Amino acid sequence: MSQAAPLPTDSLPTNSGRVDLRSDTVTVPTPAMREAMATAPVGDDVYGEDPTVNALQAEVARLTGHEAGLFMPSGSMTNQVALALHTRRGEEVICAEGSHIYEWELGMMATFSGVVPRFVPAPLGVPDPAEVRLAVRHSIHQSPSGVISLENTHNKAGGTVIPLEVIRAIREVAHAEGLPLHLDGARVFNAAAALNVPLAEITRQFDTVSVCLSKGLGAPVGSVLVGSKAAMGQAHRYRKMMGGGMRQAGILAAAGLVALRDGPHWLRDDHRRARTLAEHLVEAGYTVDLEAVQTNIIYARLPDAAAKAQGWAEKGVLANALGPDSVRFVLHHQITDEALERAMKVLKG
Amino acid sequence: MSQAAPLPTDSLPTNSGRVDLRSDTVTVPTPAMREAMATAPVGDDVYGEDPTVNALQAEVARLTGHEAGLFMPSGSMTNQVALALHTRRGEEVICAEGSHIYEWELGMMATFSGVVPRFVPAPLGVPDPAEVRLAVRHSIHQSPSGVISLENTHNKAGGTVIPLEVIRAIREVAHAEGLPLHLDGARVFNAAAALNVPLAEITRQFDTVSVCLSKGLGAPVGSVLVGSKAAMGQAHRYRKMMGGGMRQAGILAAAGLVALRDGPHWLRDDHRRARTLAEHLVEAGYTVDLEAVQTNIIYARLPDAAAKAQGWAEKGVLANALGPDSVRFVLHHQITDEALERAMKVLKG
Amino acid sequence: MSQAAPLPTDSLPTNSGRVDLRSDTVTVPTPAMREAMATAPVGDDVYGEDPTVNALQAEVARLTGHEAGLFMPSGSMTNQVALALHTRRGEEVICAEGSHIYEWELGMMATFSGVVPRFVPAPLGVPDPAEVRLAVRHSIHQSPSGVISLENTHNKAGGTVIPLEVIRAIREVAHAEGLPLHLDGARVFNAAAALNVPLAEITRQFDTVSVCLSKGLGAPVGSVLVGSKAAMGQAHRYRKMMGGGMRQAGILAAAGLVALRDGPHWLRDDHRRARTLAEHLVEAGYTVDLEAVQTNIIYARLPDAAAKAQGWAEKGVLANALGPDSVRFVLHHQITDEALERAMKVLKG
Amino acid sequence: MSQAAPLPTDSLPTNSGRVDLRSDTVTVPTPAMREAMATAPVGDDVYGEDPTVNALQAEVARLTGHEAGLFMPSGSMTNQVALALHTRRGEEVICAEGSHIYEWELGMMATFSGVVPRFVPAPLGVPDPAEVRLAVRHSIHQSPSGVISLENTHNKAGGTVIPLEVIRAIREVAHAEGLPLHLDGARVFNAAAALNVPLAEITRQFDTVSVCLSKGLGAPVGSVLVGSKAAMGQAHRYRKMMGGGMRQAGILAAAGLVALRDGPHWLRDDHRRARTLAEHLVEAGYTVDLEAVQTNIIYARLPDAAAKAQGWAEKGVLANALGPDSVRFVLHHQITDEALERAMKVLKG
Repeated sequence: MSQAAPLPTDSLPTNSGRVDLRSDTVTVPTPAMREAMATAPVGDDVYGEDPTVNALQAEVARLTGHEAGLFMPSGSMTNQVALALHTRRGEEVICAEGSHIYEWELGMMATFSGVVPRFVPAPLGVPDPAEVRLAVRHSIHQSPSGVISLENTHNKAGGTVIPLEVIRAIREVAHAEGLPLHLDGARVFNAAAALNVPLAEITRQFDTVSVCLSKGLGAPVGSVLVGSKAAMGQAHRYRKMMGGGMRQAGILAAAGLVALRDGPHWLRDDHRRARTLAEHLVEAGYTVDLEAVQTNIIYARLPDAAAKAQGWAEKGVLANALGPDSVRFVLHHQITDEALERAMKVLKG
Repeated sequence: MSQAAPLPTDSLPTNSGRVDLRSDTVTVPTPAMREAMATAPVGDDVYGEDPTVNALQAEVARLTGHEAGLFMPSGSMTNQVALALHTRRGEEVICAEGSHIYEWELGMMATFSGVVPRFVPAPLGVPDPAEVRLAVRHSIHQSPSGVISLENTHNKAGGTVIPLEVIRAIREVAHAEGLPLHLDGARVFNAAAALNVPLAEITRQFDTVSVCLSKGLGAPVGSVLVGSKAAMGQAHRYRKMMGGGMRQAGILAAAGLVALRDGPHWLRDDHRRARTLAEHLVEAGYTVDLEAVQTNIIYARLPDAAAKAQGWAEKGVLANALGPDSVRFVLHHQITDEALERAMKVLKG
Repeated sequence: MSQAAPLPTDSLPTNSGRVDLRSDTVTVPTPAMREAMATAPVGDDVYGEDPTVNALQAEVARLTGHEAGLFMPSGSMTNQVALALHTRRGEEVICAEGSHIYEWELGMMATFSGVVPRFVPAPLGVPDPAEVRLAVRHSIHQSPSGVISLENTHNKAGGTVIPLEVIRAIREVAHAEGLPLHLDGARVFNAAAALNVPLAEITRQFDTVSVCLSKGLGAPVGSVLVGSKAAMGQAHRYRKMMGGGMRQAGILAAAGLVALRDGPHWLRDDHRRARTLAEHLVEAGYTVDLEAVQTNIIYARLPDAAAKAQGWAEKGVLANALGPDSVRFVLHHQITDEALERAMKVLKG
Repeated sequence: MSQAAPLPTDSLPTNSGRVDLRSDTVTVPTPAMREAMATAPVGDDVYGEDPTVNALQAEVARLTGHEAGLFMPSGSMTNQVALALHTRRGEEVICAEGSHIYEWELGMMATFSGVVPRFVPAPLGVPDPAEVRLAVRHSIHQSPSGVISLENTHNKAGGTVIPLEVIRAIREVAHAEGLPLHLDGARVFNAAAALNVPLAEITRQFDTVSVCLSKGLGAPVGSVLVGSKAAMGQAHRYRKMMGGGMRQAGILAAAGLVALRDGPHWLRDDHRRARTLAEHLVEAGYTVDLEAVQTNIIYARLPDAAAKAQGWAEKGVLANALGPDSVRFVLHHQITDEALERAMKVLKG
């Protein structure tokens, strides 16, 4: 077997010179993550014996103020396992319009858990607690409510933040109605950065929280679900059902631990650059709701979105056209100030 | 960020001095895998842009004689995606008694695909093609058959191999009945080694094949489903539903490519050692069906299995007690001849 | 065994003197229905041998302009069987906001078919064909659309009618997108009466139609799904799965045949009386959107709806409070002009 | 509306002169049932207001020794609602090989409840309590057990009876393991008749029991699930999901009440005639396991079963060929001694 060559860190690709604003999921692992993956002690996590996975789970539980965590290959899985935990077949999932658990998780709540969404209006991604209360069903002729699920920051609304007092009010609704409360916290680190509060101040308001390591924090793969020990025991079974039981997953968890250490420091810069880019886009004549630009995501409205995006791509700037007149830009730690400058020149054209 | 230290290969743990015969999933990555993971070019596989994932998928497709492949975090997921591909709700999955898709995949065929198993007797893990034909339902009062699924080697029967002529006969049944044929090939490399045929001679008999990289081949995480391009397109959706869409999954795929290169060479030694251990166990007074010891798995019958296994564990030899009087031993490339000697001394006692 | 006494038709209860405006499902069978049930030739419909069921199915198929029909115990079952026919797990059901298949069928689309709703705005229950087109998904990152489902008349919107040209335009969208089109026609006879067209002019625009016999038509139990022969063959299996295979169901089908013969003649009177009641309610100071009163259903807005309805009930007039400030009134053939007069006196008070 | 003609009871068809031994479900309603259906007071059962349904539910609850009952259109529905009540997705249903809930209910346990069967060997339809205990799963790597379900009499085993002491022993297993116990009592009245015990002595050993009115008892349509009030409240929701909420279902319940009154008296004669027929078949040279002929069902083995059955049918004697060399005969109250004589002549030929 060939001997491992020294790790050539300077040649690591950072998205091949392109300025990739499609998502904060496109980042490649940092040298520190590469090194951690190369040296992590691992074991068979299906037997619960991977020390790096166990360390990661404990660390996310600690940061979020929960008893236990469970590592999974994606945020879709952590969300869907949580919905399965909290519901019985035929119940409703109360959630904001445009929630990721519905829009981008391909009907899994129905196929796996046998439940349907019940939408609450959510201007700027923030549901009114009074509307949440009205969405709770009591008639025996209707589906019972099973869980209330929030998303913070709210992707489709533009990376918007739910204020703490709204979370607390919705938590009271949940308690009063006897319903569990889940957070799709794929970008909850962005919310904490924007609110300038410790993560746990947000996350401990919920019964379960899904946290992604592979978005703004920059890890290559992985999400962690947190909650009570009992809930994570049950989650373990659902993870296995979905095929999320991985063997020496510590390889990935090692990068996740580095992401937890290094990633939160990057987020404020991402937010600052998003603001800069948004203002630039307005100046360039696009329509952007600046009030919605609260973290690292920008939605701009412009005609012929797909054609425009195609033109930029040919000049090395990537963004996602979502709908006929809408383009999404997402900032992340591999978009430096210099890269942003280059992108803005292209986007102006 | 700190510079990556050279990879200290001599200090890599190989299960901490223990002789771990619980499963071939407990192996830790080899230095070559570590190196590959540390240097692999990666991208966002959710966008289909991870070059290492793409290379792995192409390589498994090539080796198995199929058009396309799709990487997933586990063999449970590749199997369950395949069952979803081939069935509609309410149909039956014709499979051998004791199949992994039923025994160890936690009802996922029911919860996700809405289908039930229809068992065929399978002495030594080999179903009689005539019995498979009888298991096909034609009455409108019964569930229609949706797919025939084989497992080769068959884990619960003892790592037993399905002869090629049996596979061909069952394939004819499938064609005659208009049913697709799936292979749970978690250990199909072991089958090919035992039959001394190229992998594709087995795998191209099937419409889809699930191949595990993390068992005898030694990769830390991952399985690949292969089939037609159209089927893999549909599989992509089901993978996403189950939460198996990973971002920079090339990290894992890199180790998978090394496993594909290095792993097949180890299997014959694993099989030889399994034979040695099985004979030793018989000499030591345990009951072993030597006819069933065809690859790297041994089931021994002995009284007080759990207590015995516990006693061995205290002396550093791990094996899985499965049932009150049954213990399973699995050989893999990190059980050297020397380790086997040590284990046999403990097991004799 | 005792000899059957002559049928005392004059003593048949018509809801015990109450004026029951809660729903058009509360009617009791007419003497002609009772007689038909008492004398119908029957057989085991699970073997397809009930002549009265077969006659009913053929008659509904003929009236709707479809190849075949299948009798089921409820409109929920005919709808849910149709959704199962048209979809695969994980797909979306495009439907108007407030559709019965979502609001009152308790998540069955998710639990049984594994699909989620995709809502289209529908002022007065009428979706804009352009909005239907926008609701069709094309991205591989989202759930594919499986079926478009309309409801005519639309219960929750107030028994409103979808104009024929809108149906035709949506049918064109369905064809262009390669999607099947289902009609929840629980009250499609009311729609035909309101539009003054033959039933088939509406129903043959659809791939499948669910028709209820137990609403305005007055039968005690039963709905019929119509479509192609191939579709009804598949529907047979889904009906059996849901437990809708009934033995001597001809008993119920006999009443259904009478309902088909007699019921359509009553509907215009029901609509006339609904108009009368609606205007009366406005005069009495309640808020009613008269534009929405197109058939036999009225929604009135008034404070303290539940308490008001309770007060009326004590005086023998029943209506359903649906929400804190909303009451629904439904006319049917057992609300005579005289009964309506009595009701209006109570409601005024 | 036309006046109802007097009911011509003497012309009621009893299967058109044929001797129909295919199933005890083929009986047509008796004159007393016809009369009861023609005169029953009814209401909207979806509102819980059908007095005849309520009376039937109370009567079955009383007879079985349970708190409450719920009327449904079929035994498949009562069984599947019960499985839904007792399980969460991904669990196992422990049941005898050949159970109706698996063999003839078309995968509904998977599609609706997301659960899989776990079979226990059952010679003559009677599972060994020790085998039931072994079937309970404890490993976190396997599906948890959700419910134990028995079938008494056991259809596929030949209408065989589970002795009371076996039921009690399995009940103890259920209690010890904390699992609920369901009875598919489609023919539990036959079991009570064969054991010569009051029905409740069997049925109160279970948490829920499904009782069919449309088999040996002769009602045209309907089954009742019994259990605790709380369980029936939850069952109500699942019944609605499956589309089993019927409006004026009292029509059917009225016949069910007559069936409960008259049917149990017929069963001993059915059993006596089955014994006579079975012995006759043996004399005629067919293979019948007489030990399995305990109630009203006979399985005979003979070559070319389908062709034979076809030949008999042409002479007016109907029986079901189930498999290539197996025919099932079922006695019921519309097979008189005289009809049996006629049948035996044909079958001898």
